Amino acid sequence: MFVHRNAQLPAAELPGIVHKTLAGNNLGACRLSVWRQAIEPGAATPPHRHDCEEVVLVQAGRGRLLVDGRSVEFEADSTVVLPAGCDHQITNDGDEPLVLVAAFSATPVGTFTPGGASIDLPW
Amino acid sequence: MFVHRNAQLPAAELPGIVHKTLAGNNLGACRLSVWRQAIEPGAATPPHRHDCEEVVLVQAGRGRLLVDGRSVEFEADSTVVLPAGCDHQITNDGDEPLVLVAAFSATPVGTFTPGGASIDLPW
Repeated sequence: MFVHRNAQLPAAELPGIVHKTLAGNNLGACRLSVWRQAIEPGAATPPHRHDCEEVVLVQAGRGRLLVDGRSVEFEADSTVVLPAGCDHQITNDGDEPLVLVAAFSATPVGTFTPGGASIDLPW
Repeated sequence: MFVHRNAQLPAAELPGIVHKTLAGNNLGACRLSVWRQAIEPGAATPPHRHDCEEVVLVQAGRGRLLVDGRSVEFEADSTVVLPAGCDHQITNDGDEPLVLVAAFSATPVGTFTPGGASIDLPW
């Protein structure tokens, strides 16, 4: 059992994105990872996929999900389920920070470009 | 890929607890479950365990976790990691609703009493 205050965890940054790993193999978990990200207005994740299932809880803001050539809008208090290996990109097309919590069915989380190259994340 | 608004999902109730399943085997996921629960002041989950790992994100309020005979206080913006098979009970000992999001490394989630009897949850 492992309890921690999220404010005490380190943050990492990608362009336009502030990231915190809330649970994972370095934080007491062995089957799950949980991340929280704040994406600035106009910013986006790179197109990518994971080697595990992902569930995204939209905590604040609004955005757009590009997946399999389709674009789907979403807003706060929505949930997105992404199968393992599903290429996707999330863009904040609103005026406020887009705050997401993402749960993954593995730890660590393998992350890849659509072409299959491993993305070495800074966390 | 599956996107839904949480407000459109049905809620279930246990005494003092309002529950929503945000992701799981009936909502597009096959490896993860995600639940959201609001526990009233003074209310508690029954003592129980799961057959999978659980990560609890404390969204609002404060509470107490009883696990393995130990009692640990926690508050909003904390994270709790519970290994598979770990008996636990969560109590809201604050004055406001205790709002939790829980991610599980399986779907459906097997839930059992400390004695090993299956708990048939109403969701």
